[in-house]
Amino acid sequence: MESNTASTDDQRYQVRKLEITDKNKGFMELLQQLTVCNSITDDEFQTRFEELKSYGDDHVICVIEDVKLCKIVATGSVFIEKKFIRSCGKVGHIEDVVVDSGARGMQLGKKVAGFLVDHARLTGCYKVILDCSEDNRAFYEKCGFKQKEIQMVKYFI
Amino acid sequence: MESNTASTDDQRYQVRKLEITDKNKGFMELLQQLTVCNSITDDEFQTRFEELKSYGDDHVICVIEDVKLCKIVATGSVFIEKKFIRSCGKVGHIEDVVVDSGARGMQLGKKVAGFLVDHARLTGCYKVILDCSEDNRAFYEKCGFKQKEIQMVKYFI
Repeated sequence: MESNTASTDDQRYQVRKLEITDKNKGFMELLQQLTVCNSITDDEFQTRFEELKSYGDDHVICVIEDVKLCKIVATGSVFIEKKFIRSCGKVGHIEDVVVDSGARGMQLGKKVAGFLVDHARLTGCYKVILDCSEDNRAFYEKCGFKQKEIQMVKYFI
Repeated sequence: MESNTASTDDQRYQVRKLEITDKNKGFMELLQQLTVCNSITDDEFQTRFEELKSYGDDHVICVIEDVKLCKIVATGSVFIEKKFIRSCGKVGHIEDVVVDSGARGMQLGKKVAGFLVDHARLTGCYKVILDCSEDNRAFYEKCGFKQKEIQMVKYFI
């Protein structure tokens, strides 16, 4: 029975890259659960979507769609920074990970993090980093991360 | 006298963007004071330099040259991340800030940070962030930053 449930979940919750039609599947409303995220027009969404898409593998947004509800229930992004250090090494930066409040407890966050980490590894990064609150430390430790430094911020607005 | 000294320093320590000839002025050796940074060939340097230059204002490396010694004595980079949150907002990420051990105590680190922060502000970012050790917290607080989150890392090699 257990494996059937897992299989059913895999069919219901599809992990993939962001598509332009995801704006109509609640992608922006999901981001609103993360932080300040005003609604934007379809044109604004399309412009940013195409801009990010032009970066190819250097900027990827992962989503999980609940195909039963046609709804995006989890997301996260990773972009690849190119450096001179570490023999012109690359670093993956994970940002904006969020799981819908109605879809917690199904390991969807772990799936998103795994997708982004795998992407960073496959594009040749020597490490992947992210900033999170103390509250989320345990979650990322379960995903194989360790705390290293502190994050400093300066706001302009 | 004091203003003359300041003026002389301004002439001696020139703040500008990285140029391709900076490899011959100790740019890579300076980065070696920051972290693991193997030497790279001129071709490898040129390839990465041109790749980063193609990003225009979205990736900028600041250097300070001691024009008396023809030597790069401080550097730091900032890249601009484009998001969907905050009305398709942008965030500046500061990385790889280092001052030559023989050129400390002259506020060169503050000048580099100021250059990078100004760049992020002028390109329309709503905030600028960086990760640093506890030891460097006080320095960045003097530059107007505040601690917000913690940095998590996962190494692949």
